[in-house]
Amino acid sequence: MIYEGQELPKHALVMVGLPARGKTYIARKIARYLSWLGYDTRTFNVGEYRRSQVGARQPASFFDPDDESTSGVREAIARRALDDMVGWLIGGGEVAIYDATNTEKSRRDAIWQRCHAVGIQVVFVESICEDERVVERNVRDNKLRSPDYADVAPEEAVRDFRQRIAFYERNYEPVDEPDRSYVKIIDEGRQVVVNRMAGYFSARLMFFLMNIHPARRKIWLTRHGESVFNTEERIGGDSDLSARGLSYARSLADHMLKQPKTDQLVVWTSTLKRAVQTATHLGIRPVARRALDEIDAGICDGMTYEEIKRDLPEEFSARRGDKFRYRYPRGESYADVIQRLEPIIVDLERQRHPILVVAHQAIIRALYGYLTGRPQEECPHVPIPLHTIVELTPTAYGYEEHRVELEPSLPDRSDAPLSMGPWPQG
Amino acid sequence: MIYEGQELPKHALVMVGLPARGKTYIARKIARYLSWLGYDTRTFNVGEYRRSQVGARQPASFFDPDDESTSGVREAIARRALDDMVGWLIGGGEVAIYDATNTEKSRRDAIWQRCHAVGIQVVFVESICEDERVVERNVRDNKLRSPDYADVAPEEAVRDFRQRIAFYERNYEPVDEPDRSYVKIIDEGRQVVVNRMAGYFSARLMFFLMNIHPARRKIWLTRHGESVFNTEERIGGDSDLSARGLSYARSLADHMLKQPKTDQLVVWTSTLKRAVQTATHLGIRPVARRALDEIDAGICDGMTYEEIKRDLPEEFSARRGDKFRYRYPRGESYADVIQRLEPIIVDLERQRHPILVVAHQAIIRALYGYLTGRPQEECPHVPIPLHTIVELTPTAYGYEEHRVELEPSLPDRSDAPLSMGPWPQG
Repeated sequence: MIYEGQELPKHALVMVGLPARGKTYIARKIARYLSWLGYDTRTFNVGEYRRSQVGARQPASFFDPDDESTSGVREAIARRALDDMVGWLIGGGEVAIYDATNTEKSRRDAIWQRCHAVGIQVVFVESICEDERVVERNVRDNKLRSPDYADVAPEEAVRDFRQRIAFYERNYEPVDEPDRSYVKIIDEGRQVVVNRMAGYFSARLMFFLMNIHPARRKIWLTRHGESVFNTEERIGGDSDLSARGLSYARSLADHMLKQPKTDQLVVWTSTLKRAVQTATHLGIRPVARRALDEIDAGICDGMTYEEIKRDLPEEFSARRGDKFRYRYPRGESYADVIQRLEPIIVDLERQRHPILVVAHQAIIRALYGYLTGRPQEECPHVPIPLHTIVELTPTAYGYEEHRVELEPSLPDRSDAPLSMGPWPQG
Repeated sequence: MIYEGQELPKHALVMVGLPARGKTYIARKIARYLSWLGYDTRTFNVGEYRRSQVGARQPASFFDPDDESTSGVREAIARRALDDMVGWLIGGGEVAIYDATNTEKSRRDAIWQRCHAVGIQVVFVESICEDERVVERNVRDNKLRSPDYADVAPEEAVRDFRQRIAFYERNYEPVDEPDRSYVKIIDEGRQVVVNRMAGYFSARLMFFLMNIHPARRKIWLTRHGESVFNTEERIGGDSDLSARGLSYARSLADHMLKQPKTDQLVVWTSTLKRAVQTATHLGIRPVARRALDEIDAGICDGMTYEEIKRDLPEEFSARRGDKFRYRYPRGESYADVIQRLEPIIVDLERQRHPILVVAHQAIIRALYGYLTGRPQEECPHVPIPLHTIVELTPTAYGYEEHRVELEPSLPDRSDAPLSMGPWPQG
């Protein structure tokens, strides 16, 4: 039987675009998203192959398409990355991302033929940027930090990089092959063109691509404050906050209202009382989303760890054996949680305002896992204590993290199961 | 608090395109989808206004843009439909669809200005069809049945309609306004262009538009066979099939394998045992999808109607009062079920193969409600007995239905609650 999301496509996502158009940014986003969803994903970055084979410090002239001495070298490097990619996909990989300029139609045709011959589906992902200011920003913010320009004076690096772009522009043919599958992302998502994309995997990917943007804003994640069930060491349920939990709700509001741009803050909670109550004092109308409800513990809902260990010892040890895939009888696994969180992730990417998510341990672990680029199996093991705000700022290629413990005097029962056993709490 | 999907956008979706490009087909699909999701949606079809004001039988020359005597009339009719639409949105409507050609930029600008002035968000939805065979098919299959050509000989009607298209082609300006929100659907979804679409509502709509297609195929819906819980009149649970249920599984396979194109049949089940077991004999590997699991009866799971009435009389009567919105404590409402079925609907639209869905009463009711264009509140009241296959064939503007009762000798306990009380079973 095939569970949804577990089908195995063999896809090559082939980036297309001039330098400094955000190709690597998009490639990394896709890789993180697909890995988190459980696809075995790997990126093949031709720039990295080049640096490892001919060294980082190549002047712009290395990219001159009319210089036959270098263009042969560049082609050999690109072919080597392609060989590795095809080999990896044939050997069991699921989704490969081929990160290079691929600005010439003949090059794209060769890639397509090569993949098609062995049953790999190719999707071209082209990034077009007409806005010179965005290109300028990409060059200054990202390219100057590239190993290609280590120790080069900024103005000299910019000049050299502009020359490199000019070489690629000379032979650039935007994707326009009516029978090929492609996505064009124009001006950071202002316009998206989608051609011959069929299938659930493609639809999912496209929906994601239509929503990402590089605008900088903060994302705060927190579990609800301590609940009555937490004090009884019971999992699940829909209990109210304890006195300590109520106090955290106030501390959380105090802390958040000191943050910049809180007039624009968006707040999402689960639909469970302990999460909604935790967001009460923010003075912002939260959006309650069922997809943020805690992992469903099924028949174990409302039990303590001790009770589960005593009454359902087989469940207890099954979960210990594979906490990620273990599904509570009549309930959910972490893998299930990730599936249902997918629309939340797309919506989170779409938001341009700062956002606070008040939810539950398994949920925050899964969101945190996505935002920090962890493979899905690691999600159940991420420490997310009660009464702690995790502040994440996504950056071009990664994220910045800052954690604030409020009310650290609280004896955090949620840490116990992490060391004692594999049961989530709250 | 705002629950997701309950935010109230005021949107005007303005269709654009030459005649016979499937605008009305797309408009009806959108209307059905949004109504089912709970948005108050209404379509304003300018062709219908025309027919009611100047009669159906206008010759092609009525549409000659250079004929001042008729172009004034046509403009007045379009303005009247627009007035009604704006009035309806201001008066509380949520999503209006303005179904007309709107092929000239000046017309679109006027609509946009008019809506923008009163805070209505406008999205242009343009259908472009380059394939002459598709246009020909649309003309013959749909336009000849239009009231405009009642009692006109087919060849004469085609000739006249082609002349009407030619008049519109003369001044056609495809949407290309970079600052406007628009979706272009090219060649029935081969290519989709999306411009300045932000927000959850838009993303949802667009995802839907990218997946619809007019290819004809059958959809079969059935509940699982009778389960052990059914025989005990208990709701929910995850019990096995009864002997009768097992017999239905065999009859279902016999019946389905006699259908055309079963070599292409796609089978979806829920993840619950009774649904998976019902699909066992089909000889096709089913896809088990959690989103198809039965409505979660929360604390009532595993109870009989009698027990709920006796032990939780307030719940019993609350559900009777509003079966659509009633949410089982710790469980779901029909409204919740519809939210979680949305990706299933989009995936169902996307499929081009015949498909069999084996699920549960509330689930099949909700899917049936969508496919037959019922408003969401009616879904809980649709009769879907056990051991019955519902065969639906979506057509250009509606659907054809055919029901087959297998093993009608079964005393169908599922009918009892329909008359006795508001509880779903199975």
